[in-house]
Amino acid sequence: MPFCGAVVTFAKAIQQVCSMGDDNRIYLFDTTLRDGEQVPGCQLNTVEKIEVAKMLETLGVDILEVGFPVSSPGDFESVRQISKVVRDPVICALTRAVEHDIEVAADALKYARCRRIHTGLGVSDCHIFRKLGSTREQVLERAVAAVRYARRFTDDVEFYAEDAGRADDEFLARVVEAVIGAGASTVNIPDTTGYCLPEAFGAKIRYLREHVRGIERAVLSVHCHDDLGLATANTLAGLAAGARQAEVTVNGIGERAGNASLEELVMTLRCHPELGLRCGVDTRQITRASHLVSSLMNMPVQPNKAVVGRNAFAHSSGIHQDGVLKDRSSYEIIDPAEIGVDESTIMLTARSGRAALNHRLEVLGYNLRGAELDTVYARFLRLADAKKEIRDDDLLYLVGDIEGVKEHRIKLKYLQVVTGTVIPVATVVVRFGDRDHTATARGNGPVDAAVKAIKSMIEQQVSITEFVVQAMTRGCDDVGRVHVRMQCGTKSVHGFAAHTDITRASVEAFIDGLRRLEVTERREEENG
Amino acid sequence: MPFCGAVVTFAKAIQQVCSMGDDNRIYLFDTTLRDGEQVPGCQLNTVEKIEVAKMLETLGVDILEVGFPVSSPGDFESVRQISKVVRDPVICALTRAVEHDIEVAADALKYARCRRIHTGLGVSDCHIFRKLGSTREQVLERAVAAVRYARRFTDDVEFYAEDAGRADDEFLARVVEAVIGAGASTVNIPDTTGYCLPEAFGAKIRYLREHVRGIERAVLSVHCHDDLGLATANTLAGLAAGARQAEVTVNGIGERAGNASLEELVMTLRCHPELGLRCGVDTRQITRASHLVSSLMNMPVQPNKAVVGRNAFAHSSGIHQDGVLKDRSSYEIIDPAEIGVDESTIMLTARSGRAALNHRLEVLGYNLRGAELDTVYARFLRLADAKKEIRDDDLLYLVGDIEGVKEHRIKLKYLQVVTGTVIPVATVVVRFGDRDHTATARGNGPVDAAVKAIKSMIEQQVSITEFVVQAMTRGCDDVGRVHVRMQCGTKSVHGFAAHTDITRASVEAFIDGLRRLEVTERREEENG
Repeated sequence: MPFCGAVVTFAKAIQQVCSMGDDNRIYLFDTTLRDGEQVPGCQLNTVEKIEVAKMLETLGVDILEVGFPVSSPGDFESVRQISKVVRDPVICALTRAVEHDIEVAADALKYARCRRIHTGLGVSDCHIFRKLGSTREQVLERAVAAVRYARRFTDDVEFYAEDAGRADDEFLARVVEAVIGAGASTVNIPDTTGYCLPEAFGAKIRYLREHVRGIERAVLSVHCHDDLGLATANTLAGLAAGARQAEVTVNGIGERAGNASLEELVMTLRCHPELGLRCGVDTRQITRASHLVSSLMNMPVQPNKAVVGRNAFAHSSGIHQDGVLKDRSSYEIIDPAEIGVDESTIMLTARSGRAALNHRLEVLGYNLRGAELDTVYARFLRLADAKKEIRDDDLLYLVGDIEGVKEHRIKLKYLQVVTGTVIPVATVVVRFGDRDHTATARGNGPVDAAVKAIKSMIEQQVSITEFVVQAMTRGCDDVGRVHVRMQCGTKSVHGFAAHTDITRASVEAFIDGLRRLEVTERREEENG
Repeated sequence: MPFCGAVVTFAKAIQQVCSMGDDNRIYLFDTTLRDGEQVPGCQLNTVEKIEVAKMLETLGVDILEVGFPVSSPGDFESVRQISKVVRDPVICALTRAVEHDIEVAADALKYARCRRIHTGLGVSDCHIFRKLGSTREQVLERAVAAVRYARRFTDDVEFYAEDAGRADDEFLARVVEAVIGAGASTVNIPDTTGYCLPEAFGAKIRYLREHVRGIERAVLSVHCHDDLGLATANTLAGLAAGARQAEVTVNGIGERAGNASLEELVMTLRCHPELGLRCGVDTRQITRASHLVSSLMNMPVQPNKAVVGRNAFAHSSGIHQDGVLKDRSSYEIIDPAEIGVDESTIMLTARSGRAALNHRLEVLGYNLRGAELDTVYARFLRLADAKKEIRDDDLLYLVGDIEGVKEHRIKLKYLQVVTGTVIPVATVVVRFGDRDHTATARGNGPVDAAVKAIKSMIEQQVSITEFVVQAMTRGCDDVGRVHVRMQCGTKSVHGFAAHTDITRASVEAFIDGLRRLEVTERREEENG
């Protein structure tokens, strides 16, 4: 009983594209909501899944794998709801090679405009003998039967040959040939355990292209895991060898060490036009998508993550900063604007050189040369060795503008917080210049209460856009570090503080941010 | 003026190894304390640097790059102190191709048993013309002069050809030949901007091996950055093409998206003996090194980081869990014990299958079969859709052991915390079974105070081994999540809680952990 309704299937679309001679278009298959969502702690509710799915639609992925409907009633419902609201990408659901799974998936996909069933089973000897307790011939039969059964519900069927990375090439080729014969229009060759080396994985894809009869009737897909840190390289090797679909996740989340990351693959294709491969993603949405997935799924992105990490465009060493100030391309191969980031950051630390210091001083309105700059630079290095990160007001102090610093300084004079199983209340005394302001406020937590109290003291509308607490320590009595990104009008600044009391560190970080906003604003008033 | 004293130099050691015919030994050059340490927020003080250096010595790296001495007085001092206490690895310091830099580096390395000076400059046209404002001939002269000058202080000199990844191969070969002629025993070919594709990077190394006269007199080194997520693959491609030194960092930290990660490279070599390459690292120290660097440098490792991420060995989907329970090798290519981790984790979530649920129930002492298991599994799925992560006491509830759950439950009845710019004090009421205990304690933060108060209520000695607060949100009023790992005797459990008030979430997480310790203990008393 196939679905009714006029459906432009993916298989037909592929044929159209191929007949147009565009055989270097890569199809991006995003599995953030399936392989990513099955990670410990990443589970989303239906509303959150829809938000991610819509973001991925805006990003421009071609196929959206959104769940494994038979696995739980909640997952079934999410697939059904996403099918109703997401229109552009093909909506795909995972199944085992089991009739009941396929029926449930088809039911969940009922409302999708373009729908795909993704079915399959293990094809490596390890999976066949030890996990499935089966034989190669039985696996081959089950594979064909599952694809045939899935074709009763849609003509867009993808088969996954699980653990293909460790499977025997000859047997794998037999399976691929059989499932294409049974009607699979896409065949997924996953490196399920993240074991393969790029060259060997590319060779596997090439082997299939050369030894499977009818291979031209299906799209080969690669699905690589990152257990050895090689997922992106393996995906590229597969595409170079003739695969035309890549299965990826935002931020590279997924089982264990995760999947190939969407942003790394897309930006590599963009940086290397000589590969002659292209995809349909709007790169300017990448940073937004990364933030959404990270925050909803509670999966922090490490600062040094390629493309989307906080430091991916930050330069801190003197040699690098000097280079970037002279010419961005010295150390950057991606223009941050391409992925929707405002601009790269120069951080002042003990490793910063004269060029970076001078650049920052110029931004602050100072024009130091020669011996004068040398003196400030020497003072700067001493301070930076002790203080790690140097802020604008530290620089004002260094250049001797001590009065200016003192005058502008906002200081936490007193903080009293009562919290627990009661309504949190904070009383704060903050010194602005030489006046003390006192305020009390309630909140849903002690930090929220204190921030509300402080906000009531200031004229401008300040909003917190990012709030990161890091207390990753060996006990509960260690130092907590708080980073806060704040916005006031069009200005965005970063505040930081560390303290054994996380509450106090949070409030100090907020005040640190305010101080930087304030300093800037007062100077503009003086200049303007 | 060369150093006095009997020094077994690395150059001689290399010659010894080569004369023994072991030309497949890879030298690991760790730059966690130089390229890693120059990252925003990662700066360490001298004591912390020594702790990391000693850990890296235990890990068994061959060369330890520990700083850029001319960059600041603090960095100079760290290099000097590490030189005094670390004995096995060669100690290396970075310089520009500037005489003063080299003199300062030599001075900082004075006490090292084996010392190396790492000097160099940009060799790509982008760096030569735009950053250095120079010409190819001038760069060639400066390179030779710098190596000659460095040789006055040590006969172990490494030259870095900065931005070699984007440099013209022919000119690069001229530079490499010239610096080997001038006395460099190691030549570093960095992909400074993380731009190269693995095949092209391997081809570059092969080109040098084939076109540089005297190449056999030096070790070629690869130093790859991860801007496109390809650092590990590029490093491997370089080694396969004949490089014999790899420059890496723990957790892959470093400028921007970071460097090739030590753990990914080492474990890839170990998983792929067919490469025929080996290194001297004790893999069982990898997890310890990763934790130390992450916590001292304040650089969180994302849960899905290869090898060292929290989830690298966690299995959550039903299909995977079933496979792992039958045979670990179904989904794991690395035995967690190899890198110093106790065992892989099975997480119960909405995506978990019957096999995982049954396994956990068996551990808890239940033996359900057939319809009984089906009933509990259906209840489990409904709860997991709502609750995300399912704990042991949830399972007890599911199997109908409601009395047991209630009886064992430890509950936070009341929490009152006063903190701020005062001494934090917490008053806590906790219900154990049907009795309430009340305690008050001081601490250096509100959580520390509350934990001390609760500890005073319990008989056993409970210690916190890990405490992670995640509040990575769009504002300060969002939910904070707290993970705590606790130990009692030989038992180690994991507690979790989430609340808009981080303090309260922390206390609830501690109690959650206590509950799991308690549940286990009571059951053992009953059994024993």
